[in-house]
Amino acid sequence: MSEMAPMPGMTHSMPMRVYYEDTDAAGIVYYANYLKFAERGRTEMMRSLGFAHSRIAEETGIVFTVRRCSADYRAAARLDDALTVETRIAEIGAATLSLDQQIRRNGETIVALDVLVACVGRDSRPRRVPRSLRAALMQPAPIKPPIVQKTP
Amino acid sequence: MSEMAPMPGMTHSMPMRVYYEDTDAAGIVYYANYLKFAERGRTEMMRSLGFAHSRIAEETGIVFTVRRCSADYRAAARLDDALTVETRIAEIGAATLSLDQQIRRNGETIVALDVLVACVGRDSRPRRVPRSLRAALMQPAPIKPPIVQKTP
Amino acid sequence: MSEMAPMPGMTHSMPMRVYYEDTDAAGIVYYANYLKFAERGRTEMMRSLGFAHSRIAEETGIVFTVRRCSADYRAAARLDDALTVETRIAEIGAATLSLDQQIRRNGETIVALDVLVACVGRDSRPRRVPRSLRAALMQPAPIKPPIVQKTP
Amino acid sequence: MSEMAPMPGMTHSMPMRVYYEDTDAAGIVYYANYLKFAERGRTEMMRSLGFAHSRIAEETGIVFTVRRCSADYRAAARLDDALTVETRIAEIGAATLSLDQQIRRNGETIVALDVLVACVGRDSRPRRVPRSLRAALMQPAPIKPPIVQKTP
Repeated sequence: MSEMAPMPGMTHSMPMRVYYEDTDAAGIVYYANYLKFAERGRTEMMRSLGFAHSRIAEETGIVFTVRRCSADYRAAARLDDALTVETRIAEIGAATLSLDQQIRRNGETIVALDVLVACVGRDSRPRRVPRSLRAALMQPAPIKPPIVQKTP
Repeated sequence: MSEMAPMPGMTHSMPMRVYYEDTDAAGIVYYANYLKFAERGRTEMMRSLGFAHSRIAEETGIVFTVRRCSADYRAAARLDDALTVETRIAEIGAATLSLDQQIRRNGETIVALDVLVACVGRDSRPRRVPRSLRAALMQPAPIKPPIVQKTP
Repeated sequence: MSEMAPMPGMTHSMPMRVYYEDTDAAGIVYYANYLKFAERGRTEMMRSLGFAHSRIAEETGIVFTVRRCSADYRAAARLDDALTVETRIAEIGAATLSLDQQIRRNGETIVALDVLVACVGRDSRPRRVPRSLRAALMQPAPIKPPIVQKTP
Repeated sequence: MSEMAPMPGMTHSMPMRVYYEDTDAAGIVYYANYLKFAERGRTEMMRSLGFAHSRIAEETGIVFTVRRCSADYRAAARLDDALTVETRIAEIGAATLSLDQQIRRNGETIVALDVLVACVGRDSRPRRVPRSLRAALMQPAPIKPPIVQKTP
């Protein structure tokens, strides 16, 4: 189906650091907080394409809301760890984006996530993925420089 | 000054539990999270008087926003601790409430907070404390049963 | 397989309230925070059986760590909503517990979660589910009074 | 008093971004979350001097714990805002550090914090500020390049 165009494989990469706020009394990052990291990665991928959340909401009334999320926890991050959040669009639907995200430490995946995000309007009803966003997401991956977030 | 009427000393008490999400890698409750506990206590005090935040916002457009907060950390709470958040109105201003809050474990104060909350409208401008809320806050403290939150 | 005994269907139910800390600028509960609610529910289920996390860790060195989690977001909770976290053991493995959790508002499931929890020792290595916990989890569901958390 | 040497005025500056996780249903950053931002700033100031928290804890058994914190909220940050956390050592005591922190947006201070941090050992008892850290904190401010965090 034409709405489900496979992506050319662009991967956005965002560096980040683990702070005390992210950890818990077991000495590791609290399991829900990896979802925060993943959301930062998705946000920065969108911003790198010119689609900051606040701008989209203002201009189109559309917000992105998570419909499904599954996380596979393979190892534990700890205080002061330097992590990388890698975000790849897996599929673009009519009103949804499917994302494959990897949270890595020194190249090793410590948490892998599959996230289904839906576009909704201010009335919480489904809205189509904006045409300009779809075009930006489907452009061929740049060779260099890579799309990498420079500052937090 | 008539706007700064001293309060008759009602203290609202809310029981709560410390979960993993509240702790950090030092094995204790993360310092910012006591401010969450304090806000839950203020919210439940207001709810017990019939002024749930969402109802006030809907009916009057007023939200409460913290202008100043100081916290004195005397001891550390840990995982599974049963705490009590005690909230007392210290002063009612024209557009502000001053609150004295104690977070206790077995009667001992572990964190003491002074919080200045302001009423603002949807335009973020100061608004007077609603007359009905002022009246409710100034009513003589009930003798029994105490105003205590029953469920979380 | 004897290690994978199906459970008799006990469901633990924990009431809770949505506070400002749980919401985000879209006006709804932030998607990662439902995982905090779910963890509170699992913690209270364990506590109701006499297995508070801090006691297990102290007595056996075992902590529970999430290996996999999938969340299906069906509706959005909002500020001041009264929610119920329902937790049911789906399967007891040699070193894991599989849980089925529903976060409900007025009976309607707004988020459904499947969570796989592993027992690990202080060295982060897998440990068998303690025999006493296994026995407690497999006891026939009590008829009355129901296992319900009374206070937060 | 020799223990209370005034600092030469070094200011550490850390850029950061506001994400959905930081905001609440009032559309602004939740008041407790500015304390997270401040702690990130203190952590990065220490790291820039060679004193990452995890390294200090491992080598000396010392952790830093907040004893007092006061926050003056002057304006509200919103989703996608680019903020700067400025951290300055105000005073170095025998076992404490007093810090002056400003969270700014486009140069304007939106939240100002005074934070008193204490050094404690694994037994939670006060410990002297490590001599090497004291020396690093008291060195004359570098002219260029400024001590600025480059990556998150």
